Amino acid sequence: MTSPEEPGDTGTSLLAPGWTGSPAASATGDRAYLRALLDAEAALTRAQAALGLAPAEAADAVSGAADPGSFDMHALAERARAGGNPVIPLVADLTEAVGTEYGPYVHRGATSQDILDTAAMLVAARTLDVLLPDLTRTERALAALAAEHRDTPMPGRTLTQHAVPTTFGLKAAGWRALVLDARDRVTAVRDALPVQLGGAAGTLAAFGAYGAPDPTALPAAYARELGLRAPLLPWHTLRTPVADLAGALAFTAGALGKIAADVLALSRTENGEVFEGGAGGSSAMPHKANPVRSTLIAAAARRAPQLAAVLYGSMTAEDERPAGAWHAEWEPLRDLLRLAGGAARDAAELAEGLRVRPGVMRGHLGLTRGLIVSERLAAELTPVLGRSRAGSLLTELAARTYTEDRTLGELLAEVPELRGLDLDALTDPARYTGSAGALTDRALERR
Amino acid sequence: MTSPEEPGDTGTSLLAPGWTGSPAASATGDRAYLRALLDAEAALTRAQAALGLAPAEAADAVSGAADPGSFDMHALAERARAGGNPVIPLVADLTEAVGTEYGPYVHRGATSQDILDTAAMLVAARTLDVLLPDLTRTERALAALAAEHRDTPMPGRTLTQHAVPTTFGLKAAGWRALVLDARDRVTAVRDALPVQLGGAAGTLAAFGAYGAPDPTALPAAYARELGLRAPLLPWHTLRTPVADLAGALAFTAGALGKIAADVLALSRTENGEVFEGGAGGSSAMPHKANPVRSTLIAAAARRAPQLAAVLYGSMTAEDERPAGAWHAEWEPLRDLLRLAGGAARDAAELAEGLRVRPGVMRGHLGLTRGLIVSERLAAELTPVLGRSRAGSLLTELAARTYTEDRTLGELLAEVPELRGLDLDALTDPARYTGSAGALTDRALERR
Amino acid sequence: MTSPEEPGDTGTSLLAPGWTGSPAASATGDRAYLRALLDAEAALTRAQAALGLAPAEAADAVSGAADPGSFDMHALAERARAGGNPVIPLVADLTEAVGTEYGPYVHRGATSQDILDTAAMLVAARTLDVLLPDLTRTERALAALAAEHRDTPMPGRTLTQHAVPTTFGLKAAGWRALVLDARDRVTAVRDALPVQLGGAAGTLAAFGAYGAPDPTALPAAYARELGLRAPLLPWHTLRTPVADLAGALAFTAGALGKIAADVLALSRTENGEVFEGGAGGSSAMPHKANPVRSTLIAAAARRAPQLAAVLYGSMTAEDERPAGAWHAEWEPLRDLLRLAGGAARDAAELAEGLRVRPGVMRGHLGLTRGLIVSERLAAELTPVLGRSRAGSLLTELAARTYTEDRTLGELLAEVPELRGLDLDALTDPARYTGSAGALTDRALERR
Amino acid sequence: MTSPEEPGDTGTSLLAPGWTGSPAASATGDRAYLRALLDAEAALTRAQAALGLAPAEAADAVSGAADPGSFDMHALAERARAGGNPVIPLVADLTEAVGTEYGPYVHRGATSQDILDTAAMLVAARTLDVLLPDLTRTERALAALAAEHRDTPMPGRTLTQHAVPTTFGLKAAGWRALVLDARDRVTAVRDALPVQLGGAAGTLAAFGAYGAPDPTALPAAYARELGLRAPLLPWHTLRTPVADLAGALAFTAGALGKIAADVLALSRTENGEVFEGGAGGSSAMPHKANPVRSTLIAAAARRAPQLAAVLYGSMTAEDERPAGAWHAEWEPLRDLLRLAGGAARDAAELAEGLRVRPGVMRGHLGLTRGLIVSERLAAELTPVLGRSRAGSLLTELAARTYTEDRTLGELLAEVPELRGLDLDALTDPARYTGSAGALTDRALERR
Repeated sequence: MTSPEEPGDTGTSLLAPGWTGSPAASATGDRAYLRALLDAEAALTRAQAALGLAPAEAADAVSGAADPGSFDMHALAERARAGGNPVIPLVADLTEAVGTEYGPYVHRGATSQDILDTAAMLVAARTLDVLLPDLTRTERALAALAAEHRDTPMPGRTLTQHAVPTTFGLKAAGWRALVLDARDRVTAVRDALPVQLGGAAGTLAAFGAYGAPDPTALPAAYARELGLRAPLLPWHTLRTPVADLAGALAFTAGALGKIAADVLALSRTENGEVFEGGAGGSSAMPHKANPVRSTLIAAAARRAPQLAAVLYGSMTAEDERPAGAWHAEWEPLRDLLRLAGGAARDAAELAEGLRVRPGVMRGHLGLTRGLIVSERLAAELTPVLGRSRAGSLLTELAARTYTEDRTLGELLAEVPELRGLDLDALTDPARYTGSAGALTDRALERR
Repeated sequence: MTSPEEPGDTGTSLLAPGWTGSPAASATGDRAYLRALLDAEAALTRAQAALGLAPAEAADAVSGAADPGSFDMHALAERARAGGNPVIPLVADLTEAVGTEYGPYVHRGATSQDILDTAAMLVAARTLDVLLPDLTRTERALAALAAEHRDTPMPGRTLTQHAVPTTFGLKAAGWRALVLDARDRVTAVRDALPVQLGGAAGTLAAFGAYGAPDPTALPAAYARELGLRAPLLPWHTLRTPVADLAGALAFTAGALGKIAADVLALSRTENGEVFEGGAGGSSAMPHKANPVRSTLIAAAARRAPQLAAVLYGSMTAEDERPAGAWHAEWEPLRDLLRLAGGAARDAAELAEGLRVRPGVMRGHLGLTRGLIVSERLAAELTPVLGRSRAGSLLTELAARTYTEDRTLGELLAEVPELRGLDLDALTDPARYTGSAGALTDRALERR
Repeated sequence: MTSPEEPGDTGTSLLAPGWTGSPAASATGDRAYLRALLDAEAALTRAQAALGLAPAEAADAVSGAADPGSFDMHALAERARAGGNPVIPLVADLTEAVGTEYGPYVHRGATSQDILDTAAMLVAARTLDVLLPDLTRTERALAALAAEHRDTPMPGRTLTQHAVPTTFGLKAAGWRALVLDARDRVTAVRDALPVQLGGAAGTLAAFGAYGAPDPTALPAAYARELGLRAPLLPWHTLRTPVADLAGALAFTAGALGKIAADVLALSRTENGEVFEGGAGGSSAMPHKANPVRSTLIAAAARRAPQLAAVLYGSMTAEDERPAGAWHAEWEPLRDLLRLAGGAARDAAELAEGLRVRPGVMRGHLGLTRGLIVSERLAAELTPVLGRSRAGSLLTELAARTYTEDRTLGELLAEVPELRGLDLDALTDPARYTGSAGALTDRALERR
Repeated sequence: MTSPEEPGDTGTSLLAPGWTGSPAASATGDRAYLRALLDAEAALTRAQAALGLAPAEAADAVSGAADPGSFDMHALAERARAGGNPVIPLVADLTEAVGTEYGPYVHRGATSQDILDTAAMLVAARTLDVLLPDLTRTERALAALAAEHRDTPMPGRTLTQHAVPTTFGLKAAGWRALVLDARDRVTAVRDALPVQLGGAAGTLAAFGAYGAPDPTALPAAYARELGLRAPLLPWHTLRTPVADLAGALAFTAGALGKIAADVLALSRTENGEVFEGGAGGSSAMPHKANPVRSTLIAAAARRAPQLAAVLYGSMTAEDERPAGAWHAEWEPLRDLLRLAGGAARDAAELAEGLRVRPGVMRGHLGLTRGLIVSERLAAELTPVLGRSRAGSLLTELAARTYTEDRTLGELLAEVPELRGLDLDALTDPARYTGSAGALTDRALERR
């Protein structure tokens, strides 16, 4: 648990209402990293003990000493500067805490990157474990919205303009499909997160020097201690796990960003088809109700792709440990976990609280004076009038809807050849939602 | 010679030696897109015919007219400006080419994005189908290198400095593992590429207006015509397929970029442990042999993450079709396909032609006067001297290797307590490669 | 029609309605680069002749042979693969074209990067020279709009919601200010574009070997031939000019992107306060008028920052010429020039054609039933009612505007204490535009 | 000053050895932002008092209450979630702290963004003020290195291979030129940083409602209080200052990244031409001396361009305040300031401590057996042998240097026609450094 007196990233930031206070925030703060680093060190000694390479007492001693509350996080951060990573001073402090007898078993055979990478995977696992429930909350709320509004018609909009009708159910079902896609990608990556163990250059050589008959058995034992996967090879410069996290998290932010973009568009004062429950206030205008959850999600979605780009870029890691590419990963990976995790929390609140106004949607279907169904009429009038005459008639009437401020339905009713048609039905936007209902049903079958 | 009136991206560029002339280049040029657009239009009519919604003759007529050679690509590109996409003028031209009788079946019920997205997926599929063989060539050549050099010792390097020994086999096996990871990700994405079909706002409504009893059957029929997948929902603004391509292609560029980074480091004149077969010349210096393949791969790896970032960013696509996010995808997706495809070609040539110089590697193992095995000695001397004395002795001797220009082995031989040890073995870097061989074997079992 | 053997980027692309056919497109195509490469080679010989280091006849011969029409662009692009850049085959062909006598003076003393960098600066200069007039067209049209609508009130919107009134004049003046900022940054960068000249490692050594008494005089002579600046040092790996282009072009795309974002928001069917003149059609819906210019600008603005990121990233260029960082610049720089140039053209058309609907704006001022001036009333009622009572009254009345569907003005008129106030004036949104007019005037004074 | 018990970003992070403890870190922590927010609020009241719009006592009261130590930073961060920014709860707390009488003057007429943007500019100004001295330290140390090594020859390297000789002086002078370019860009941006003041929608209307006869005078008064510039217009959605910061900071990181890239290349164990003073240790290998400063700078340079891309992307800010684009700026701007500031500190230490080994450089000049001067010989032998014979001879001898393991000089000495030449001079790499000295002198004249 984070105590407020600790330095560094501890789950709140004045500049980050998007993730402050979220489950992902406390799972990614400096204290969470410190805990993960200590967990990684303790597990390493335990894994060696499990294989008979260290005394059980050493494992106990290290595990006992590996208590985050006993370490000076601020000083560790400062001392990390000398060697360029926090594991070097941490090992010194932990060794001292363990004492003379078992101190030599601390970090034995490992390299800093083994511990820092393993800790990063632990932090990622723990963060994804709190992020995924928020994706589930989100998709469930969206499923309920989609079911409730399966037949709620609204304008479909393309390039900002009314195109043809759609339903709010289909829109919500689409949002949910993206959330499920995100959930599947995050889950797959979560389940594959590996420990890191290779020693100084990834050959496991030091473990042999310390007496392991088969050092290649160690990574699996290490993975068992931590509930992570054993990798095929040490991955100090084979950054598949980090790149996969980048992809899944950028995807998640983008998926939630799509929902936010839609809510923002539909919340505009002129639109008002939806609004956020519990919308935010303003320092200057007492009447305002801002779509704050969507705004913060949208902000996260603007940032995540570039953070992922840094991580993909860090795959080009030379040698057995690179001079910069690895170090460039640390903060962006944390930032991505936070942004995606904070956005998932906000998305859950957004989806659960969203207010939908079917009457406003229906009202908007009339804004184009019936032209929103012109596509349908082009199809339906052709058998009656011929393609050419149908087209020219619609073009003429479309112009007249503007100049005469009348609806397409009214104008069509004056065309003698069309008397046999059910123009009320043909010009009713609510009856031109196509397969929206069927598609919604199909999408909701996915679990 | 080029005449100035010629359009577009046709597989070569003066500024792109990395992808010019590669299989991916011709698979992604303007002509390839035009062909894919026409394939998409023809398949749409055929799919309608297959479901009895259009006469077979219409399908034949559209398929027959959909010949890229009959269209003025330059004019299409120019005319695309008016509506903001090339499908609008293409449909006009195709309809005219099909003629009066069956022209009305061209593009019937579809929207521009149905065609352009489907064409993009076709282009992606065709490009990945030529990219994957180059990944396979690459991994096979790397497997051969790994097997051949399973026991070739070389310095392991971290943060630019010699750390402990490794083997070239393990390095090549690691490269291959990344290539296989890329292959798996590209293959999974390739197999999931869907058609796009939804009509103006994704409800399939126009197909109903044109008489389809169940428009939701159309996407599957469409997919069958094109050998792509049928999507669960129209994905005009649910951009999972594009985001997944972004991730897989950025991953591929990064994986190949890691190899290039290593080859570049090992090719430096002072290093010379490997060099590219068929290295490139210089306009100014006759003696130079530049690692050109690695250079071009490295350049691709610098660009791909940012292109992927644009595509991830385009997931935030408002409404039923967005005003900008979709349009921002087109060129970056093509660029990513080209860069990854070109890099895969270069990587295959690089891996197949790479010259390895075990003698140089072995020579370099001595550069630190034996300190490259200091980690081992710290472990091995502890039982003999005690941890404290072992540490202080090594620190003292390490300093003396510099000041006296002697090797650690020579200095250790003068320490009386160590006479019983096989110092030759303990200080031989070639005998401190740990589990490199076993790890290489394990990695090569993966197919 | 395109023949498949044709090379490269020649100003149109099926996937790029945003820049196809723009002045920037033809200024950046492969042909334009070939011309610039040849201009750079010819100028190099002329500069040597000007300093007496080569015969005038050699300069004439090279200048005469440097005709883009005489070179096989396709073959050059292909042959660039071997050495990784197009200058190597170009020099071979140009030398042959010049003939035996003066051929040795072609490219004498230079390195490929001297020519390619100089050509890139020439292309940049020529592109900026056609881009800047479009920025000027844009700002002039915006100045006219700002002046015309200096006092046209409209809702100011924050976080999608009506805040307080503003004027369209102030909005247009703000757009113009950004365009002027872009113009100033582009102009400054344009005026500083330098030639590149350093020889193989930037020491100008070869020029001395060929007899120049003071090779450091050559860059200035070279710059004079081309109308560019002479750099303080060769900048093969000091990439200030490229980074500055990145910044200015990303700025330009962002500035125009702001305008596009506003036009898109104000063009939404529910909003309709502005629309693009000459709006684009749709392949599916005859009635649609899409904001195509804004859409294409918005797409450019989504891509430019990531292209700039690649260029800033390429500043980390090791040694005297890097293996990848330089090569990674070529296409992104061209892409940025094109995107910014295309966006400038679209912005000029957008600004010149924009239709503004003051009546719609005024109508929207009433959408919040007077709450859009609640900020003003909070200030004005305090002296009358006291701060506390003023606040609680406004909160109560704001709620009643919704529940009773009445305006704030109507409700205030029923409050006895307020009888002495000119409530019509205080609640008229058009009379609460603050300093919008004065700010517009001030902004228009800037030239 | 930061007290260690405060939450949030307070200048250290376990994951950020690159900026932890740097001047930029404490200038950008949450406490620094809180202080800047309070400074902005206090200055706003003072500015109103200076214009007679508020009593002097109110200004004193607000200034006195605006003490960061009196506010609960953790709670503010949490409460920022509701409205999406920290100013809303801060104003509430500050108003309460000021008390009943003068509380109404807190934040009067302003909007949250006025305060947050102004605070961000204050933080930027204060950070740049501590960053610039580190750039100056860096350039001075580099100037000294350049002067000292004006004539120290070393191999010039292109695409990883020896090209022709250069000098370390020219290299250091080039580094310095980039640092000066960064300094100039940072200084220009620093001097232009503006306050933000516009009120709810940028019209300054509320200030008029509160009695200001000419609200447009307020921004200048406000700027005077804070030592920042008065903007031409409120820039809530005209993000020039932020974009300019992005460019200058990405430039700075790239400039320092170039130095780091070179030091890393030259530090490789096989190279060893330079090494960092005070190099970092390793947790596993006692003998290692890692180039830690360069590594951390390199990591910053990998991240900065993508952070700048987010900021450039945020220029596309719709309406009078955007829903997401603005919020997406906050953390990336802070990150950029920190990364650039931390890198500047590391660069100063790197430059001041860099050890240069001229003997190693000179030794490396012989690695190509004289081929490093082949360019020179091609020029010098042509007058003697004719161009054709000179070329073929050099090609033949270059090959023989490898097959016979002899130097080019030795082989040339056996060619009878060349007996009259001073082959010792012509083949001495140290005598083929061209204008490196003169260029160094010229570059050092720049101040």
